[in-house]
Amino acid sequence: MASSSSLTLSQAILSRSTIPRHGSAQPATTLSVPSFSGLKSTSSSAATSVSRRRSPAVNRLPIRASAAVETLEKTTETELIDKSVNAIRFLAIDAVEKANSGHPGLPMGCAPMGHILYDEVMKYNPKNPYWFNRDRFVLSAGHGCMLQYALLHLAGYDAVKEEDLKGFRQWGSKTPGHPENFETPGVEVTTGPLGQGICNAVGLALAEKHLAARYNKPDSEIVDHYTYCIVGDGCQMEGISNEACSLAGHWGLGKLIAFYDDNHISIDGDTEIAFTENVDLRFEALGWHVIWVKNGNNGYDEIRAAIKEAKAVTDKPTLIKVTTTIGFGSPNKANSYSVHGSALGAKEVEATRKNLGWPYEPFHVPEDVKKHWSRHVAEGASFEAEWNAKFAEYEKKYPEEAAEFKSIITGELPAGWEKALPTYTPETPADATRNLSQANLNALAKVLPGLIGGSADLASSNMTLLKMFGDFQKNTPEERNVRFGVREHGMGAICNGIALHSPGLIPYCATFFVFTDYMRAAMRISALSEAGVIYVMTHDSIGLGEDGPTHQPIEHLASFRAMPNILMLRPADGNETAGAYKVAVNNRKRPSVLALSRQKLPNLPGTSIEGVEKGGYTISDNSSGNKPDVILIGTGSELEIAAKAADELRKEGKAVRVVSFVSWELFEDQSDEYKESVLPAAVTARVSIEAGTTFGWHKIVGSKGKTIGIDHFGASAPAGIIYKEFGITAEAVVAAAKELC
Amino acid sequence: MASSSSLTLSQAILSRSTIPRHGSAQPATTLSVPSFSGLKSTSSSAATSVSRRRSPAVNRLPIRASAAVETLEKTTETELIDKSVNAIRFLAIDAVEKANSGHPGLPMGCAPMGHILYDEVMKYNPKNPYWFNRDRFVLSAGHGCMLQYALLHLAGYDAVKEEDLKGFRQWGSKTPGHPENFETPGVEVTTGPLGQGICNAVGLALAEKHLAARYNKPDSEIVDHYTYCIVGDGCQMEGISNEACSLAGHWGLGKLIAFYDDNHISIDGDTEIAFTENVDLRFEALGWHVIWVKNGNNGYDEIRAAIKEAKAVTDKPTLIKVTTTIGFGSPNKANSYSVHGSALGAKEVEATRKNLGWPYEPFHVPEDVKKHWSRHVAEGASFEAEWNAKFAEYEKKYPEEAAEFKSIITGELPAGWEKALPTYTPETPADATRNLSQANLNALAKVLPGLIGGSADLASSNMTLLKMFGDFQKNTPEERNVRFGVREHGMGAICNGIALHSPGLIPYCATFFVFTDYMRAAMRISALSEAGVIYVMTHDSIGLGEDGPTHQPIEHLASFRAMPNILMLRPADGNETAGAYKVAVNNRKRPSVLALSRQKLPNLPGTSIEGVEKGGYTISDNSSGNKPDVILIGTGSELEIAAKAADELRKEGKAVRVVSFVSWELFEDQSDEYKESVLPAAVTARVSIEAGTTFGWHKIVGSKGKTIGIDHFGASAPAGIIYKEFGITAEAVVAAAKELC
Repeated sequence: MASSSSLTLSQAILSRSTIPRHGSAQPATTLSVPSFSGLKSTSSSAATSVSRRRSPAVNRLPIRASAAVETLEKTTETELIDKSVNAIRFLAIDAVEKANSGHPGLPMGCAPMGHILYDEVMKYNPKNPYWFNRDRFVLSAGHGCMLQYALLHLAGYDAVKEEDLKGFRQWGSKTPGHPENFETPGVEVTTGPLGQGICNAVGLALAEKHLAARYNKPDSEIVDHYTYCIVGDGCQMEGISNEACSLAGHWGLGKLIAFYDDNHISIDGDTEIAFTENVDLRFEALGWHVIWVKNGNNGYDEIRAAIKEAKAVTDKPTLIKVTTTIGFGSPNKANSYSVHGSALGAKEVEATRKNLGWPYEPFHVPEDVKKHWSRHVAEGASFEAEWNAKFAEYEKKYPEEAAEFKSIITGELPAGWEKALPTYTPETPADATRNLSQANLNALAKVLPGLIGGSADLASSNMTLLKMFGDFQKNTPEERNVRFGVREHGMGAICNGIALHSPGLIPYCATFFVFTDYMRAAMRISALSEAGVIYVMTHDSIGLGEDGPTHQPIEHLASFRAMPNILMLRPADGNETAGAYKVAVNNRKRPSVLALSRQKLPNLPGTSIEGVEKGGYTISDNSSGNKPDVILIGTGSELEIAAKAADELRKEGKAVRVVSFVSWELFEDQSDEYKESVLPAAVTARVSIEAGTTFGWHKIVGSKGKTIGIDHFGASAPAGIIYKEFGITAEAVVAAAKELC
Repeated sequence: MASSSSLTLSQAILSRSTIPRHGSAQPATTLSVPSFSGLKSTSSSAATSVSRRRSPAVNRLPIRASAAVETLEKTTETELIDKSVNAIRFLAIDAVEKANSGHPGLPMGCAPMGHILYDEVMKYNPKNPYWFNRDRFVLSAGHGCMLQYALLHLAGYDAVKEEDLKGFRQWGSKTPGHPENFETPGVEVTTGPLGQGICNAVGLALAEKHLAARYNKPDSEIVDHYTYCIVGDGCQMEGISNEACSLAGHWGLGKLIAFYDDNHISIDGDTEIAFTENVDLRFEALGWHVIWVKNGNNGYDEIRAAIKEAKAVTDKPTLIKVTTTIGFGSPNKANSYSVHGSALGAKEVEATRKNLGWPYEPFHVPEDVKKHWSRHVAEGASFEAEWNAKFAEYEKKYPEEAAEFKSIITGELPAGWEKALPTYTPETPADATRNLSQANLNALAKVLPGLIGGSADLASSNMTLLKMFGDFQKNTPEERNVRFGVREHGMGAICNGIALHSPGLIPYCATFFVFTDYMRAAMRISALSEAGVIYVMTHDSIGLGEDGPTHQPIEHLASFRAMPNILMLRPADGNETAGAYKVAVNNRKRPSVLALSRQKLPNLPGTSIEGVEKGGYTISDNSSGNKPDVILIGTGSELEIAAKAADELRKEGKAVRVVSFVSWELFEDQSDEYKESVLPAAVTARVSIEAGTTFGWHKIVGSKGKTIGIDHFGASAPAGIIYKEFGITAEAVVAAAKELC
């Protein structure tokens, strides 16, 4: 534990170093960006002549810059590195120029750290981007994706060939406008929405730490990789990043190394206009080790030294603040917002070529650079082969652990896992679906080695604790109860990282359903990036009672039904809760949201796991020939009400079908025949009941049907009273049905 | 500018003081909470005997505790204060007990700071909770609302009488489960969802600083109040609070004073399990002045001194960390999570009464306490009278400024303001609605003195800059362009604070429409708390093109149409954009979301401001007798496509009506007659087209109608190609229509 290398604040103050500051707010066109002759070695001192617009030092506490250059082994001739770095810059410039769309500024500024990471530091196998023990890289500042595409291209990944670079941001290409893991093997997670990536990285590092603690043996470390991340000023401003970075510090994720591209430019201009906090100091406060690389533009040795130092600190994550010039090399646009998100334009591209001494055609990678990078294919293959051999040994010695571990790294669920799901009969006492959810989670934890998760400080309300495990903490990372604190958004994004670390990791996370509003951006990324996170969302309606409208979801079911590639499940009782978990576990590329009740619900006759798998199904029916007088459709806690109303109506001689509509998406996936068997087109007398907005229900009940729901905010009172006052009752269903049949 | 009283870090280190730490993790039941005999003065040293479970000091940097006790004027006898503080505690205990629901822990711990604020520090008029120049108070830890209700009750607010306390959390009461400004005059904003309140407080303080800068004169400071806030550990963990607090530091909001209820307990137990960052240091990094009150349980003088110090620091917001014991006074539950969110139970209430020496019946306020508080009614009236006199003087001297200021404090919009809205003809060149939005904003800024706002670092993309104004910044607070940085969630919550500060303040804020996902919790609070924020959301569909699916909204229109009390508006051209602004400005109690295009749209014949006000209206029709063959319904950028399809169909002899469905909510508000005139029940041949999810559209097109939309994620490519590939075309509309008529 290299805690001695941790920088304390007092040291920081004592060793305070001054940086050259040019206070003038000159327009970008007058900045004196040094003109390099491409093939000559650039000295790191050159960069200090780049004028930087900085705030007065009021709130900035300089921290020790990494300076242990003398301890480094030089790996390559500097001039070749310059050339490689410029190749990266120009691949980005050229691709953005051809697309006439994209963000050249970040790749131009971050090319040096990108080069060092992919060429000198990271272990990966370009021909198998999914090799388990690879180092993970996340570009949290996802708009700079041409950096990553250029690096994947140079490193020999098949997904990014020259034609893919030329197809940047075009229909059907592997090089979309922001990094997408589901499009481009080699990209770990989907970024672009700012702040998400660094949280994904925290999740990836958590997964590594957890799996290492569970499966490594003193004689065989089969889990051992780093997680690297590049974050920009935008990521730093987003609250989500503070949430996850606070947790990363708390958990002591020593193998998480984040580069902060400190370029002082965001879309609206100098960060000075909205971002003058002391980021270094904030990260110190969050429990991170912080290093400052003053010259990110060509201070290769500084970058190398910083990574070395970061690796030496094993009990804390490290933030390497790398001061760079956005759009480095562009004589007229560097260090200005104009280079952030637009093509340079033919004239400026030409000027930049001249400035950086780059005589090549667009997209050309010089032979010596190609040759230099070409070793990664062989190297990567040998990394993997070495690991495979190590794992083969491990498997021999520890067959049980190896089997479990394989299930995690392949995603193959253990045979018969679903037999662990509890079943219920109508005689089973009534219970809240949040409690039934806990029974499922605890049953599944025994058979699913990859199940890991927790709640945003509501474990005892969401009922998410796995009783046989302790807390995942800094010193007990082998445990499986994760304590996220009141950080819903960070929680969701961390779970995305966990899910995308290994296909057999099944993260779940929990809060009150209404607070999905805090984490919706992360949930959308789950859906988009095919991360099978299980969202355990309790207190799913006005049924939570006294906490009132701030806590009562109304529009939330509809809002997730409208979201692509996510399963919204609202089980009604024990069997349906088990069914919801069966679906959620099976859907590894489609996240699930489980809406669960705070209040007790009876186990209804007719519910089943199989029914849930079809999304909508009949739980009771006294009609014949698929021609009921009326169909009553309910979900979750209101299925009971529909069933009660059916009893009433049947007493009056009506032929009534009751349908549980637990998941619209699953129902949509069924055959037309099945759909007709549940909701026959000829039966237009339909009544829906759900303690939430009626928005969307007209598709199900049709033009002639009726919807019972709540299209306004809730109220603070005991649940039973609110249900009655808002008319979510069997009487209301009966009355509506009678109007129709 | 008392910058000398600002605590620098080096000073903090030099003056590092040690705190008594009892490292033992004893169960709560063994904590030795001091037993007070109610009417005796309690010495502040007593509190040090309260055992506190703390983390090792690894990551906690002690900061200077406030100790300037000798400089204080004692305002009241300590024993009466003890009694008042205990009265507050027991009102909370009794109300939660009666409701058998609620959160007694916070009020019991925060009663001392609450007492000092409402009894000694804040200026307000209980009989006019809306008096303009009142100090604002926000309980960000809203679950502790019984603290605020008890204080409002003691202070003489009419909304919280004894029967209201007895009706805590009951149907129809003025004392809901979390503070709601729309239910309880005296409550400024709606809190409960954690972190929102502190951001609202930042907005309130911003509004004060802005109005003071615009309207105060050297001889008349008509705007001059503080904003106080109590935040808990939960608020501190939420990312949103870091966003807004970073801005508060950046803006130097010196009159914002936040109390951090540092009680080390959250719902899941000791904050140690998930929250070990150094909060003090983080706030230093954010540019705040930080003070630590070690004994918040009865260190009245410490609290007073801290407030005095905070007021002396005028160039920074202040965080007063007040270490308290959650559930203070409860012998068996204090300092444990069990007192956070549940009634104490009859036995423990009894034990607490004994422990704190409180012989009274539930809800009883002793006469001397009542008498002591009774002065606030008269005092408040005289505060307001004094201010009224001052304002009358001001009005005489500065009639023009006074008129403008009155419009802001009354919310009465200047007569004829809507004449400023631009109008367009089909001959006006095509333009993006985001640009048209900017024309509207700039036109309105000239006539609406309360219009203020900005973007989350996308001003040049959202087109939100007011050209005649500069940036609202620390030293230019009179300006009206607010630079929020990449902090969508904080932005929304800050705007809620601005809107609820004064009825004539009209805040707008902006980002890409898809990133409403980052700020949805704040937007829901806008809707719930009747804060008429204008959300300017550009890049509203796949029409944004190359940025790809992370940036392309699909489900977002539906998700806001499903949300209560919010207006979702998607204008199609110039006139409709003007109409959308007319609606948004007029709706001061219903926030508006404007979905605006990145791409150019033509000005269509038939669009109008009046049409927008009806939500849905016919823009063209070649049928007669309200019997078209088919109705084509579009919104925003797809209205043009519907119009084109109509042209095609008309060429083939069809009678086609084209309806713009710019706001579903406004259409819903129309009479049945009007609705029938636009969408006659007899015409079931209807086709909708919208570049977003079809979810919800079946209500409009009916069982026989057709919906054209996108029920999957988008793609990265030029916009025109995506529209074509996804079938959002006039050809598709024509084909669908032909199937129906």
